[in-house]
Amino acid sequence: MARGPNPVELIERKRDGGALELDEYRWFVTAYLAGDGRVQEGQMAAFLMAGLLRGFSRAEALSLTTVLLESGDQLDLSGLRGPTVDKHSTGGVGDGTTLVVAPVLAAAGAQVVKLSGRGLGHTGGTLDKLESIPGLTVSLPQERIMAIAEDVGCVVAAQTADLVPADKALYGLRDVTGTVPSDALVASSVMSKKLASGAGTIVLDVKVGDGAFMQTLEAARGLADLCTQIGADAGRRTRAIVSSMDTPLGRGIGNALEVAEVVETLQVPPSGRFADVCLTLASLALSEATGSDVDDARATVTRLWEDGSALASLQAMIAAQGGDPAVCERPREVLPAAPVVVDVPAPGEGCVSRIPARAIGLVSMGLGAGRQHSGDEVDPAVGVDLLVGEGDDVEPGQPLARVHARTDADADAAVARLGELIVVGPEGQPAPTVLEVI
Amino acid sequence: MARGPNPVELIERKRDGGALELDEYRWFVTAYLAGDGRVQEGQMAAFLMAGLLRGFSRAEALSLTTVLLESGDQLDLSGLRGPTVDKHSTGGVGDGTTLVVAPVLAAAGAQVVKLSGRGLGHTGGTLDKLESIPGLTVSLPQERIMAIAEDVGCVVAAQTADLVPADKALYGLRDVTGTVPSDALVASSVMSKKLASGAGTIVLDVKVGDGAFMQTLEAARGLADLCTQIGADAGRRTRAIVSSMDTPLGRGIGNALEVAEVVETLQVPPSGRFADVCLTLASLALSEATGSDVDDARATVTRLWEDGSALASLQAMIAAQGGDPAVCERPREVLPAAPVVVDVPAPGEGCVSRIPARAIGLVSMGLGAGRQHSGDEVDPAVGVDLLVGEGDDVEPGQPLARVHARTDADADAAVARLGELIVVGPEGQPAPTVLEVI
Repeated sequence: MARGPNPVELIERKRDGGALELDEYRWFVTAYLAGDGRVQEGQMAAFLMAGLLRGFSRAEALSLTTVLLESGDQLDLSGLRGPTVDKHSTGGVGDGTTLVVAPVLAAAGAQVVKLSGRGLGHTGGTLDKLESIPGLTVSLPQERIMAIAEDVGCVVAAQTADLVPADKALYGLRDVTGTVPSDALVASSVMSKKLASGAGTIVLDVKVGDGAFMQTLEAARGLADLCTQIGADAGRRTRAIVSSMDTPLGRGIGNALEVAEVVETLQVPPSGRFADVCLTLASLALSEATGSDVDDARATVTRLWEDGSALASLQAMIAAQGGDPAVCERPREVLPAAPVVVDVPAPGEGCVSRIPARAIGLVSMGLGAGRQHSGDEVDPAVGVDLLVGEGDDVEPGQPLARVHARTDADADAAVARLGELIVVGPEGQPAPTVLEVI
Repeated sequence: MARGPNPVELIERKRDGGALELDEYRWFVTAYLAGDGRVQEGQMAAFLMAGLLRGFSRAEALSLTTVLLESGDQLDLSGLRGPTVDKHSTGGVGDGTTLVVAPVLAAAGAQVVKLSGRGLGHTGGTLDKLESIPGLTVSLPQERIMAIAEDVGCVVAAQTADLVPADKALYGLRDVTGTVPSDALVASSVMSKKLASGAGTIVLDVKVGDGAFMQTLEAARGLADLCTQIGADAGRRTRAIVSSMDTPLGRGIGNALEVAEVVETLQVPPSGRFADVCLTLASLALSEATGSDVDDARATVTRLWEDGSALASLQAMIAAQGGDPAVCERPREVLPAAPVVVDVPAPGEGCVSRIPARAIGLVSMGLGAGRQHSGDEVDPAVGVDLLVGEGDDVEPGQPLARVHARTDADADAAVARLGELIVVGPEGQPAPTVLEVI
């Protein structure tokens, strides 16, 4: 057949529970992206829905990853001296782990080249958070990315349109056709970008809970498992953790607020939920990248954190990307501040029993910290600082959270909503963090 | 919401096993057809695939029928004097029943206005068959359709683009996205056209077997059941039969060949498989339309068949539509003949154990009798005449089938293929016809 396979036959096979071969995926995706009518939009959408409902095999997830990867450029990190590491989170609320993990690993002698896209969501992505630092740019040419990685050990930049363009096109269609939540589609999307970014070691943080994409531990474990399998099949050392996102991971939820929290976390010895996830990810990555024992790696990471080396790496990276390095000394002075700051008082004595991640994220988005539509501007200064966590005892009137708003009206709405959301009751317990290491 | 419902929410609901309301279907289908981007092609395709795999409720099938029906004009048959009847077959091989059933009912005093589309398939549709009669036209203005129905009692015409245009658009998408075989989508497509055609009584012939759309009795029964339910909900007297399509229904498979068989069948008292299905459909329709007992109706139909009234009605209809009425006297002289006619001899003595419907249909299509792509021309003269049926005893060399071809090469290929397909073995038995009456 000169025109290639029959798309209807491929759709019908998937509809009836069958599987496609690598060559068939290569043709189907390429023909769709070519936009020449060989595979029309409705055909790709019907295929994706059939796959979501009927499932994809592991071999198919790997095939999809391969085809996405082949659609664009790949970064060649072989010129870097140390072991190369990449890190990905499936996204949550108050999740600034990248900005801790990358400099810690850099301090340990690894090189972290982290390319990010601009996602939609409750709060901005890693790029938006970094851009809240005065002067900092994430739009870096490839030569500059490589130079910073070599000099500093870590760099966080915007991925270009040439990195896995097929993923962008497919995601755009999935987003409007109810075909996002498929393990194989998510895993191939994530892993094709990680593979294209070239690192030898990949660590993944799969979030589970009400503020995450995955709602059950089983689902999160399945996705983590599939991603690590794909990574291994592609010859990369790949590990994953499953961590809880029922309540926000960090206390800051908003772009500058999260950067401030990152700095303040690295200024002191690691403690608390946010630091625990960062430590776990960093030590897992380091042990994989260097072949060392994970307990030894954790000791190394803790030492580099406590002696200030990690914060120094973050500062060097910020400076190399044009940002004001003073942010690592006096973050709340250097970062943009919102004009209206109001606290949410505790209604009475008790224990904080619930701080729901997703709803808190939506409050922050309502203040302007997140992006509802692609292309929306985010406000770097606004958001919510949680002043307590689940399981904390509180006194009447004690501030539970601090709202950073652009206007009084915004602040009033957020304070009222947070008063409803943060539950103070007779008892509560600290939320879990790392649930599983895969 | 000024823009109406969120299409992604509707798709997700169906994906997750939920149901849409009538108003939601009305918006979703109308917005898709408007082509203004409110519902894009991929969204409709994903929805259709989700529905095919998750299923539609009966209420949803009725809603879809209603929405399709509302998309176009409806024929008003209230001006006709007698009971009005429409008939539909889900399609098979050698299925000329319409051209027998319609004149029989006309002879019994009913009025049959049958509007057909031009389908794809092994052999031409009813319109193609009729058009093999010299001079006959199926493109009739509505006034002429009504006049023929009133004068003659039956008329078969091409449906206009204004009849259920939404069905045409949706079918076009389903055809290329693997979303044809859904009971609710098939039933709503069939029944919207039947309801739009205005008849008070509707009889359906749901085919089952290797030459049909439905492969199992259970599936065929399900579709028949759903269609009759939709018809009843819309206030029409609706009945259905399930009939076998494992072997061709008639002996002629090709356009003129089927017309010849229709005439020859009406020239003699009813006997054989083809006549049995026609008799059953006609008597079911007549008893529903007149409220009479089905055995009485069958006696009436048989009498009108045997006394020549039915053939006279067919002749009057052909004449009214511009065709040569002599076709009803000497069909094989009047109808176009193929230049090459070759018989397929029996390989030895035995009993015909298998004549597979679908494969025989494909032989006829290969000769030019059918349409592979929309817009293809059909050759009226070519096809296959089966000279034996399953269960017939044959002598060595006895002709099993007669090939009517345009070229020697076409004939040779068809003869060779038929020699493989028609199985003569130690034993066989006559194929069943009507399997169920619903």
